[in-house]
Amino acid sequence: MPTLNEVARHAGVTPATVSNVLRNRGRVGASTRQRVLDAVDALGYRPHLAARALAEGRAPTLALMVSSIANPFYPEFALAVERAARTSGHFVIICNTNEDPLNGRAYLDQIAGTLSEGVLVTNANLDFADLHTTESRGTPVVLCMWERPNEPPGLPCVAVDFRLAGELAGAHLLELGHRRIGAIVGSKASGIHAARYEGFVDALRAAGVRKGPIKHAADTIHGGYTAARALLEANPKLTAIYATNDLPALGAMHAAADLGLNVPSDLSVIGITDIQLARDSRPALTTIAVPTVEVAELAVSLLRELIETAPRCEGGRANGPPMRTASSPRLVVRASTAAPRKARPE
Amino acid sequence: MPTLNEVARHAGVTPATVSNVLRNRGRVGASTRQRVLDAVDALGYRPHLAARALAEGRAPTLALMVSSIANPFYPEFALAVERAARTSGHFVIICNTNEDPLNGRAYLDQIAGTLSEGVLVTNANLDFADLHTTESRGTPVVLCMWERPNEPPGLPCVAVDFRLAGELAGAHLLELGHRRIGAIVGSKASGIHAARYEGFVDALRAAGVRKGPIKHAADTIHGGYTAARALLEANPKLTAIYATNDLPALGAMHAAADLGLNVPSDLSVIGITDIQLARDSRPALTTIAVPTVEVAELAVSLLRELIETAPRCEGGRANGPPMRTASSPRLVVRASTAAPRKARPE
Repeated sequence: MPTLNEVARHAGVTPATVSNVLRNRGRVGASTRQRVLDAVDALGYRPHLAARALAEGRAPTLALMVSSIANPFYPEFALAVERAARTSGHFVIICNTNEDPLNGRAYLDQIAGTLSEGVLVTNANLDFADLHTTESRGTPVVLCMWERPNEPPGLPCVAVDFRLAGELAGAHLLELGHRRIGAIVGSKASGIHAARYEGFVDALRAAGVRKGPIKHAADTIHGGYTAARALLEANPKLTAIYATNDLPALGAMHAAADLGLNVPSDLSVIGITDIQLARDSRPALTTIAVPTVEVAELAVSLLRELIETAPRCEGGRANGPPMRTASSPRLVVRASTAAPRKARPE
Repeated sequence: MPTLNEVARHAGVTPATVSNVLRNRGRVGASTRQRVLDAVDALGYRPHLAARALAEGRAPTLALMVSSIANPFYPEFALAVERAARTSGHFVIICNTNEDPLNGRAYLDQIAGTLSEGVLVTNANLDFADLHTTESRGTPVVLCMWERPNEPPGLPCVAVDFRLAGELAGAHLLELGHRRIGAIVGSKASGIHAARYEGFVDALRAAGVRKGPIKHAADTIHGGYTAARALLEANPKLTAIYATNDLPALGAMHAAADLGLNVPSDLSVIGITDIQLARDSRPALTTIAVPTVEVAELAVSLLRELIETAPRCEGGRANGPPMRTASSPRLVVRASTAAPRKARPE
């Protein structure tokens, strides 16, 4: 492979000039610029990214840590992250932790600061202590989807108001006339979906409606299916189910079908996120859409800022780690919700 | 960050010994080994991957080129690729080409041989000339899912007998008694799914059954939906639809529902691949399963072999580029296929 020096010789300029042309830096006249580009073409020169990054004390990739890229949410998010990262010349390494903090730590130890210049973390079940260690070694970390804007996490993050998402879901069902609403929470009681449930309860409370039955479940179609069957069998008068994520909501629709219930005329179902499957399901799922692409862009842009300034300013955070707040979630009405057959005022 | 030399000083050994311990090379006694590991722990040493790779003339990642990671097939495949790559210490860079050969070329130019030691290509709509160029520069390329084992592509590949997949799908519908079967092909007539359709026609021919109507469509749920509506409206006597991929098969099920047809009693539907959605759909989709994980493992292992031997043996391929053939596709019967209401012998 030809070197920068060979390109410079071929073009009759200094290596520094070649470098400036290739990186759009410094002042280079148009004809010199063209001569350099011609030499690059003629020799088939390609900058050696790893060498360049090392020489500059930089790394050429961003790491995206996810619990499993096979979860239908992440691919859409990863695609948006990759697009945003490419605008700063970064490549994206996918790190599947498989919900295991040890996998996450192994990845962080191996790539942070060497192969990856920064780390984006989605709900990858990582140990915060590991993330702080990574940060303290000078590699910025951004949490991509923090659920509680009012309770910052002690790490840089992009926050989405998921309590509001839950509130919007509750308000939609209430407005349709539902009063007996079951809830499926896709995490443990104290887990990451707690804010989504609190917002839903806020909406009920504001309307003076009693909480219905609740099931905690795995955040999957199957988890939602099992939870919904249990809810519906124990509470046959439920007219609606609120699930804290789209996957369990889809499972709830399957459970309704297996119990001979029509969605939405016998049972309304609503989720949160608006993944592709929500649009493709039958009936299409009413959901509270989260601004996935915007979150990805904010996360990459915040990470780039931190890369530019870290680690010098590490100690100087007067106001705690930076947080960017994404646009508010919004209701997307599709075919899975409708007024109950007979509204039952309490 | 501490250096290898500091670890060596701390452990009272040579840097070469530290290197041997960390890489499981050479002969190092148990107590020395432990001293080195203790020093690594005490100093928080982490090998600098980019530096190591450069020093060895290697690159620390494999590139996985896909048309879009958001297509439900790729995440499952990417997960398997990542697992296999990790066993050789490689990280995986996801390169979305968005079906655009220019994006693919840009990626290849920027990472092949520098950041990535080898390139895995799924159906990313890349220009073969670009792939040959990459190969000729010394960076091995493997096509991950070549559809015609009997017609090798001129590049190293993992082949799956997709003609057989089509044949199995046809045979299953014929065995159930279907004689009026529409086909949805998820590519252009000469496109990548052609072998899948040929196999289906083979099965019909062997049974002496006439070909039914065919539609070429986009390889998506929506593409399948539109094609199935057109097929069913123009050919109301169809009792089954064969789709060359799961996504259009799922779309065909939606179209049947919208036309008031019950799947499977009014219409049987079968696909190819066995993506997660096929298992999660209602009714669950009968399909011809392709060994996705095995293909990923074979592809990574072939790429590693090529990395070890390339580019010295480039000219010496007596038998053309190597090809690995994955296990045969197999029928997975679920709820979307059944005997037609009245079998109509021709």
